[in-house]
Amino acid sequence: MPDQTAPETVTAGTPERGRRIDGKAFAAGLRKQIAGDVVAFHEKHGITPGLAVVLVGNDPASEVYVRNKALETHRVGMRSFMHMLPETTKEAELLQLVDRLNADPEIHGILVQLPLPKGMDGRRITNAIDPKKDVDGLGEVNAGRLSLGLPGLVPCTPLGCLMLLKSELGNLRGLNAVVVGASNLVGKPMALLLLNEGCTVSVAHIDTVNPQALTRMADILVVATGVSGLVGRDWVKPGATVIDVGITRIPASAGKTKLVGDVAFDEVAAVAGRITPVPGGVGPMTIACLLQNTVTAARLSLEGAPD
Amino acid sequence: MPDQTAPETVTAGTPERGRRIDGKAFAAGLRKQIAGDVVAFHEKHGITPGLAVVLVGNDPASEVYVRNKALETHRVGMRSFMHMLPETTKEAELLQLVDRLNADPEIHGILVQLPLPKGMDGRRITNAIDPKKDVDGLGEVNAGRLSLGLPGLVPCTPLGCLMLLKSELGNLRGLNAVVVGASNLVGKPMALLLLNEGCTVSVAHIDTVNPQALTRMADILVVATGVSGLVGRDWVKPGATVIDVGITRIPASAGKTKLVGDVAFDEVAAVAGRITPVPGGVGPMTIACLLQNTVTAARLSLEGAPD
Repeated sequence: MPDQTAPETVTAGTPERGRRIDGKAFAAGLRKQIAGDVVAFHEKHGITPGLAVVLVGNDPASEVYVRNKALETHRVGMRSFMHMLPETTKEAELLQLVDRLNADPEIHGILVQLPLPKGMDGRRITNAIDPKKDVDGLGEVNAGRLSLGLPGLVPCTPLGCLMLLKSELGNLRGLNAVVVGASNLVGKPMALLLLNEGCTVSVAHIDTVNPQALTRMADILVVATGVSGLVGRDWVKPGATVIDVGITRIPASAGKTKLVGDVAFDEVAAVAGRITPVPGGVGPMTIACLLQNTVTAARLSLEGAPD
Repeated sequence: MPDQTAPETVTAGTPERGRRIDGKAFAAGLRKQIAGDVVAFHEKHGITPGLAVVLVGNDPASEVYVRNKALETHRVGMRSFMHMLPETTKEAELLQLVDRLNADPEIHGILVQLPLPKGMDGRRITNAIDPKKDVDGLGEVNAGRLSLGLPGLVPCTPLGCLMLLKSELGNLRGLNAVVVGASNLVGKPMALLLLNEGCTVSVAHIDTVNPQALTRMADILVVATGVSGLVGRDWVKPGATVIDVGITRIPASAGKTKLVGDVAFDEVAAVAGRITPVPGGVGPMTIACLLQNTVTAARLSLEGAPD
């Protein structure tokens, strides 16, 4: 006979708490799948997908990013082309290069690393990329296709977040999603992707008076503000799935630094059902989704626009 | 000395209730302003803005719509061109007409009335319109510009709703807006317009489990579902501004019919601060905004893309 005075312990039916979503492992699996797709694509069409990455100037962070992008492209068996131009490059020269890459049948994806040097019109450059090769999904046509719910090329980071969410939760239809942050790079495309999946979607941002009133209702909470540690335990509904896009380097002990997200991980993990860590959550998904978009773009180039 | 037993009466500070937003009067004022802009445009450039409306087939409702659009275009002093094609028109013929209108310097706006006859690819036709002449704002490029917060041509109905809201409320930044309905024609562009104005924005729709939980938090509530009388008093926060986009013809007494919106007007007017009636609210704004977009398009054609 059980001891009636012992505290109740509930095991079955207790919602899971603080499950870490391993973006690093997911991205590795995705890259493996992409490598297989690249082989199959070559067998079918006799063509290897190719990605051109363009860097203008000497921003150290950008140099690291483009090197990693080129390397990962190469590692999944695609052709990787790197164009590194001096800081003194004129906008017209860059537009000429984009036109040449647009016309080059060996190039299926074009990425111009942002930010561009001062004086260059980043929007004009981005829009100059053929929408079928716009693997960053930042041009007007692909932004429009996403908004209209049509197939197209979707910005890599929100695409990666969506892949993680679908992998964790399956069908998202009817779930209540809140996106914190309304940038063109993450927040807005993320909101539109979730809307297209059938979620109820709210977007909170810097001007939102009481974001917690919304976020506490969220089954899915995506945070992309760049404000480290913004989202605490009191922002999160118990059992929610939390995706942390933020990544900030802050001072740590002994003169070292560390990377942290927009979510106060330890306290939120105690209440969230599932949560992405920083690093190792959303970050590794971004380049993997760039590779995915390049394969999608190669398919578009042979099969025409998806509409 | 006041009678201490009398019930408190509060006058100063009592929020207004049930103020009708007169879209008909607002649209009349907008048309007057547009007529002045047309004169000024002609004086400055020697050119009168021109709108081409294309109708394919014999849908009776569409025939009424295009006639009204042409008439109102003419009345504000613009040039109005109507192309009425038979139901048997081939998609290739329609695309040829669109191309001709794209190239015609007398035409600044092109509107192909939807829905198109079966067998025609409406998306292909819409995207074939030069984005600078896409006065319905339904092409991919303008949808993308709206999503990215760039200037462009915005769908007429949500643009009309936004004009009413700004006229009533002034600066919308920080207000909590909820859009019910997620269509490409109204709900999604409305949400993006409100987001670009700095509102916190939520979109509820057919798959939303408990829409009232969101709508009861809304300072601005825009309803565009096509479900007559969907939104009752218990959906609305006291003092909210309610914009009713729905319009449905239902049976009335003595064998007659009447037009109603998605909002149960009488009961919601008792709690809302301001509310658009149906008819006479959003409806009259749509064609007025089409005229506004045609003037905007004429400016674009002379001054180039706004970026």
